Amino acid sequence: MILELAFIEVLPANHEAFEAAVKKGVEEVLSRAPGFIAVELQKGIERADTYNLHIHWETLEDHTVGFRESELFGQWRAIIGVYFANPPVVQHWSGLWRYVKS
Amino acid sequence: MILELAFIEVLPANHEAFEAAVKKGVEEVLSRAPGFIAVELQKGIERADTYNLHIHWETLEDHTVGFRESELFGQWRAIIGVYFANPPVVQHWSGLWRYVKS
Repeated sequence: MILELAFIEVLPANHEAFEAAVKKGVEEVLSRAPGFIAVELQKGIERADTYNLHIHWETLEDHTVGFRESELFGQWRAIIGVYFANPPVVQHWSGLWRYVKS
Repeated sequence: MILELAFIEVLPANHEAFEAAVKKGVEEVLSRAPGFIAVELQKGIERADTYNLHIHWETLEDHTVGFRESELFGQWRAIIGVYFANPPVVQHWSGLWRYVKS
């Protein structure tokens, strides 16, 4: 399990359209990608024009090779990319440990 | 529910000690903070000397006021802060939407 963490800046006039586009893009495209597990959309509190996407993949290559080199990637970016104010900042993270209050 | 996302750089010689310190600090201190829900520790793939902590709180103020102004904060930082190579970068995020592949 690998976490893709993407920070995406969106101008205020496009917030609502971007949020709707993410839902559409996930349901129609991203959810069909091999190795895709789950996604969360979050909005910044201090950085009010920045969203993040937490995308969980089975392996790093499911994202960096399988998805990015597939036709699905172009379709996904066509749906959400029009709302990007800047190129997104994307990095990957490996989960080490988790604690949940009982 | 609010996500605190903290990026923490740690020099390679301290990775193992830092990971152990996080577990100790969570179990002995952070887990006792009012409003604390869960935490995940992750390690960067591209940024191999950077960890992130995802800390889930019931409200923003549970972190920014309740925890940071309590004695627990000093105890937490005493356990993990010795391993910080730089001041951590901490921001808060509101969850909007989640999709899990069925």
